[in-house]
Amino acid sequence: MPEFLELLPPLEALTRLLERLAPSPKPDEIDTAQALGRVTVAPVVAPHPLPAFPRATVDGYAVRAADTFGANDSLPAYLQVAGEILMGAAPSFELQPAQCALIHTGGMLPQGSDAVVMVEHTQSARPGEVEVLRALATGENVLKVGEDVAAGQEVIPAGARLRPAEIGGLVALGFVRVQVARRPRLGILSSGDEVVPPEVEPGPGQVRDVNAYTLGALVEAAGGQPVTYGIVPDQEAALRAVAARALAECDGVVITAGSSASTRDLTAQVINALGQPGVLVHGVNVRPGKPTILAVCDGKPVIGLPGNPVSALVIASLFVTPVVHALLGLRRAPFQPGVPARLSLNLPSQAGREDWIPVRLVPVADGYLADPVFGKSNLIFSLARADGLVCIPADATGLPAGELVQVVIL
Amino acid sequence: MPEFLELLPPLEALTRLLERLAPSPKPDEIDTAQALGRVTVAPVVAPHPLPAFPRATVDGYAVRAADTFGANDSLPAYLQVAGEILMGAAPSFELQPAQCALIHTGGMLPQGSDAVVMVEHTQSARPGEVEVLRALATGENVLKVGEDVAAGQEVIPAGARLRPAEIGGLVALGFVRVQVARRPRLGILSSGDEVVPPEVEPGPGQVRDVNAYTLGALVEAAGGQPVTYGIVPDQEAALRAVAARALAECDGVVITAGSSASTRDLTAQVINALGQPGVLVHGVNVRPGKPTILAVCDGKPVIGLPGNPVSALVIASLFVTPVVHALLGLRRAPFQPGVPARLSLNLPSQAGREDWIPVRLVPVADGYLADPVFGKSNLIFSLARADGLVCIPADATGLPAGELVQVVIL
Repeated sequence: MPEFLELLPPLEALTRLLERLAPSPKPDEIDTAQALGRVTVAPVVAPHPLPAFPRATVDGYAVRAADTFGANDSLPAYLQVAGEILMGAAPSFELQPAQCALIHTGGMLPQGSDAVVMVEHTQSARPGEVEVLRALATGENVLKVGEDVAAGQEVIPAGARLRPAEIGGLVALGFVRVQVARRPRLGILSSGDEVVPPEVEPGPGQVRDVNAYTLGALVEAAGGQPVTYGIVPDQEAALRAVAARALAECDGVVITAGSSASTRDLTAQVINALGQPGVLVHGVNVRPGKPTILAVCDGKPVIGLPGNPVSALVIASLFVTPVVHALLGLRRAPFQPGVPARLSLNLPSQAGREDWIPVRLVPVADGYLADPVFGKSNLIFSLARADGLVCIPADATGLPAGELVQVVIL
Repeated sequence: MPEFLELLPPLEALTRLLERLAPSPKPDEIDTAQALGRVTVAPVVAPHPLPAFPRATVDGYAVRAADTFGANDSLPAYLQVAGEILMGAAPSFELQPAQCALIHTGGMLPQGSDAVVMVEHTQSARPGEVEVLRALATGENVLKVGEDVAAGQEVIPAGARLRPAEIGGLVALGFVRVQVARRPRLGILSSGDEVVPPEVEPGPGQVRDVNAYTLGALVEAAGGQPVTYGIVPDQEAALRAVAARALAECDGVVITAGSSASTRDLTAQVINALGQPGVLVHGVNVRPGKPTILAVCDGKPVIGLPGNPVSALVIASLFVTPVVHALLGLRRAPFQPGVPARLSLNLPSQAGREDWIPVRLVPVADGYLADPVFGKSNLIFSLARADGLVCIPADATGLPAGELVQVVIL
């Protein structure tokens, strides 16, 4: 396949990949206390209502609302105190007409009561008697049974990422274990004859393998599990053998190519031989990252990324992160709002191509300046110095200084 | 101390707490590959420059720029091909005047060369000779030694959260291990006679302990390590004993009070007895969460939260998260941009008090609607149904429908 015959816009390229995937996340039962950030595989249905009993929302007296009809400061309702409701226990008595019971926030209303008067709206003149200074509506200051959740109600859909609030909701219903999607395993291969493992002192002409680590971290941040397959020499047979093993053992594969054009072509050949349908997209209309390859091989996503660390990381945030989300069965991408900022200088760009520019955010009086981090695109620390990325859309020929942009946080 | 003598605005209350803390994060040496999201305890200094050798940024020919002076399509410079630079190896030859060398992206420039001409700007008429069709400047298409990082340069400051780019930068410099701040341990105590562990079937009047789990997840998300101390009965001696043990064993303590006023007062008494200076703030001008307690006891933060799960979680996001960040030595809070949205309806509020309202984000043609999730404030699923929170500032008496708000994502 000739390189760059057709350059797709990034979003169209991603759609072409995702519509060929039909992920079915495998379930993994884990402790709810450990489930932060995990994704549900099935809807969660409430086994009982919440609250399970009528509860006071204030400190005061449980009453029959009808007994307070017309009560006010000058004409209080006089109620007999039948007792106190202890926290964590069922009331030991039933409320009779013209009676009330001392109750605390969260306490269980006794049978016969249907409202709670705040202690501030009462006074006590004689022992065993309370004067209620205002009229109450039925249900006032009371949480009704099932007001939060009804029995049998779906409370968390499948494909939801569990935040602290969902963890709390599960625990409130007694789910101390939860079925979540297994973290998808993404096999990561680095190729390039110049690449050495990071623990090795590079010789002349050699560089350490950065991509396996940046991509591993990105896969982890997206909710996946990186599985590294090391550095493969730029030879078709070797690359094909390791890629095939990674595809068999994982839910998807990411290959970073060597940086020269010949090794990029090699990657495409190897991916095409891995399985059907093979390469779907070869070349994306984005900088950095034009030589990106998107493929599906036997139902699993395979992504070829440029070898240069900055391109690989920027492109992975556009393609690998959404693929991990798809494999997790996430029903909706997490909100990733940008930080509004004004460009510190003119950014030129080539029309017809989407550009992603690393910027630092510099606080100023009325918000932030987005200050481009200069540096050639294969300098990893130019990205480490950046707070985020600014996208110059394909239909623009650059953006002027002072332009309001949305900085996507790295 | 009487409750709510003085209600501080949330930001002022937080400042009062943070300025009494002098955290000194303990170092923890871990694998760089496992360091995503961790925070550096010391600056990272480059042991060698990056790149460590001059590299080609394109596929083409390494040349002496001077040899291409004046070259163009009609008057090319004729250069003799001295050989090919293999990836990952030092060149085996030095470039003489009027010579060039085939080189690939990322390859090491041979001695004597100072620029790389793109292959697209050359043609080859005779074997062993290349015609260069344009003039090159010194350094063109070359990454110079130290262009990314100089030897001895501080590349990552102390207190930086490690993202994929920093992980890559560390690995590029050979740091396969990194010193990060130990995760601060936050002891979490739940009190309340009505509270039972989640694995227990609650009896009448009892509820499961939601707060230990939501707060544990929030502490984890902030970068800390939750340590749970279970449910403590609403008795001063019991609460004091467990709180003292948690304070001794952890870097900070969070106590969720029982929901009635008397148990909230008990919490304040217990915290004041834990150490000096004790309670700094009792009562914050925010809803939900007025009864919040902020304290420092013998140099460690102690926070008393309302017992109701929604209040506890909202207030924890305002106070516990920044405290965990401070204990980590984080030099700058992570960017947490809001999602701009228009309110779906009028939100009333009491002037002089900050209100936090859970909302769902509903996609519409031109962005999002922020649709308040109704429900009384102690319903955990009202928060699980929300995408984020809208703040009604203290100086407003509500916000009108259609108002543009920033939704803080949960």
